[in-house]
Amino acid sequence: MLPYLLLDQRKCQSNIDKMLEKATKMGVSFRPHFKTHQSATIGSWFGNKSSQAICVSSLKMAEYFAANGWIDITISIPINPNEHNRINKLASIAKINLLVESIEVASSLVKNIHHKVGVFVKIDCGYHRTGISADNIPYIRTVLSHLQHENIHLRGFLSHFGNTYSSSSPQEVKSIYSSSIQQLLELKAQFIPDYPNLQLSIGDTPSCSIVDDFEGADEIRPGNFVFYDVMQWKLGSCHVNDIAVALIVPVLAKHAHRNEIVIHGGAIHLSKEFTMHENGEKMYGLVCRFTNGKWTESIENAYVCSLSQEHGIIKLASQELEKTQIGELLAILPVHSCLTANLMNGFQTLDGQIIRMML
Amino acid sequence: MLPYLLLDQRKCQSNIDKMLEKATKMGVSFRPHFKTHQSATIGSWFGNKSSQAICVSSLKMAEYFAANGWIDITISIPINPNEHNRINKLASIAKINLLVESIEVASSLVKNIHHKVGVFVKIDCGYHRTGISADNIPYIRTVLSHLQHENIHLRGFLSHFGNTYSSSSPQEVKSIYSSSIQQLLELKAQFIPDYPNLQLSIGDTPSCSIVDDFEGADEIRPGNFVFYDVMQWKLGSCHVNDIAVALIVPVLAKHAHRNEIVIHGGAIHLSKEFTMHENGEKMYGLVCRFTNGKWTESIENAYVCSLSQEHGIIKLASQELEKTQIGELLAILPVHSCLTANLMNGFQTLDGQIIRMML
Repeated sequence: MLPYLLLDQRKCQSNIDKMLEKATKMGVSFRPHFKTHQSATIGSWFGNKSSQAICVSSLKMAEYFAANGWIDITISIPINPNEHNRINKLASIAKINLLVESIEVASSLVKNIHHKVGVFVKIDCGYHRTGISADNIPYIRTVLSHLQHENIHLRGFLSHFGNTYSSSSPQEVKSIYSSSIQQLLELKAQFIPDYPNLQLSIGDTPSCSIVDDFEGADEIRPGNFVFYDVMQWKLGSCHVNDIAVALIVPVLAKHAHRNEIVIHGGAIHLSKEFTMHENGEKMYGLVCRFTNGKWTESIENAYVCSLSQEHGIIKLASQELEKTQIGELLAILPVHSCLTANLMNGFQTLDGQIIRMML
Repeated sequence: MLPYLLLDQRKCQSNIDKMLEKATKMGVSFRPHFKTHQSATIGSWFGNKSSQAICVSSLKMAEYFAANGWIDITISIPINPNEHNRINKLASIAKINLLVESIEVASSLVKNIHHKVGVFVKIDCGYHRTGISADNIPYIRTVLSHLQHENIHLRGFLSHFGNTYSSSSPQEVKSIYSSSIQQLLELKAQFIPDYPNLQLSIGDTPSCSIVDDFEGADEIRPGNFVFYDVMQWKLGSCHVNDIAVALIVPVLAKHAHRNEIVIHGGAIHLSKEFTMHENGEKMYGLVCRFTNGKWTESIENAYVCSLSQEHGIIKLASQELEKTQIGELLAILPVHSCLTANLMNGFQTLDGQIIRMML
């Protein structure tokens, strides 16, 4: 049923293999973030699930992957101290790592945890979403001291350099990476005398794709790279041909006098995530022709300029509009594949296999 | 499981009753748009389903409501000419109305339709999403002439004045409404001699909520009013207390030095729809306290300022931040309730009933 999310399994597998190879070459552990695909089937493309460490973005997602055979899971959102029952239950069947960034949560965890868990202290290196500021040594020391408990294995410091997403060039991604990892290395140096086994876990997709040297990091946790998207392409994380998913949509109307066509594909399919077109307008996706069950290179200067609940509007050159027929299918490369996949709740591979995500 | 979408059934029923009463008073038919709630349960709150005319935004949604007992359904997106089989099947069990805005689609429909259907010609009165421009009389005449067929009942002209959503005041909503309905009335006057039964179907939520006189219109099709949201409140369509849904989220972290708290509630729950805060920043939701299973008035100057996949960031005054505990639940009034409901795929009522939406 249209619209549907088409997945090029070969591109996806190649993205996985390249990142795994890079991690191996750099000597860091690979703990991919499974929030992007949310699928046990795609998760299995990373290799043997019983030995594959993974990362997820919610307790619910951890429960889903644990039920599907993954046993080493980092839940990379600060824990809700009122969900100890679910955390204990999950910790009884899988090796889980939790994020803590406050004394309140550390104290509550120590009181309520009945199974062995790993804990990372979440550190903010400049993104300012979550975490303790990397220079707040006294508070970090206090939180660490509150985490002393036989069921708690202090894993180290975890950070998400999410400010790389606002970069205007690969050079800026590298620069944010350098300053962020430097902060973590200094932090680790402060605490290694007292906590000799502390590790550093990092890993946004822009850094992991663009940076050539992860020296000092112990583990990377990129997620989006499995599909990539227009945002990553614009950041320089990938080639446009590495994008592994496209929304397949029918053309419903043509408005030649304003160089627009209307598609059935809206905010409930693509999400309202946008990036800026070079003409200064919002862009919700790139547009490709779709022939013989595959998408081809993107149509020059064509983009999704507007989305409502089910409708999308594409701007394109008049000669391309003329070539386009009502009823024809087009392929839209999403701006943010994590959100598009979450909305579509499943994939169709190029050879017609249907892949479901967690509900 | 958190986050969940809480629905105040009393507010929702009151929103429905008020709109029905207004339509009755104004002498127009009421064909509510069910895309906002996508739920047979909530649909039944509008009254007897076998006599309730409705509007939906996709063929799939039409199939869902037809399977649940509604028999008079307008599908308010231009039809895809490659889906005649599904259209014929649906038309064999329900009275459906389709939108046509081109000669190509009109011709294709005439060739392929095997059951009686109603058809509206979609007219653009200035929103510029879909439809034939209201002043393009020759093209409208040609499309009408292509729709002559024993299975086609020409219903009239249908328009969505979606440009009301960009208004900066209720006065501007009224002004867009006036100019748009005037265009439709002139159009109808042109064609009434040849097509004496043409009707006018209109109805975005801002117009239907704000305008006091629908003279000349035959039918209104608002949808969002069933829940309203922050966008509608800002437009002047409703009071903030009329908003009937709120996302219930736990507080995960506090960052007092930047007046921010972190919630588990992100783009996959609220959607990335935003409106502008009066301080010039993006706003993804208003924030209310949540006590005894209900949300109270919104916290002054508090708003969701940033969303990633699962995390949300709330800005709030320091005295409000101090009063807030990690683990506490807050209620977020969504910017666009249609998109939030679609993402959450269900509701919990104040008395604990779980309401599912179509899948």
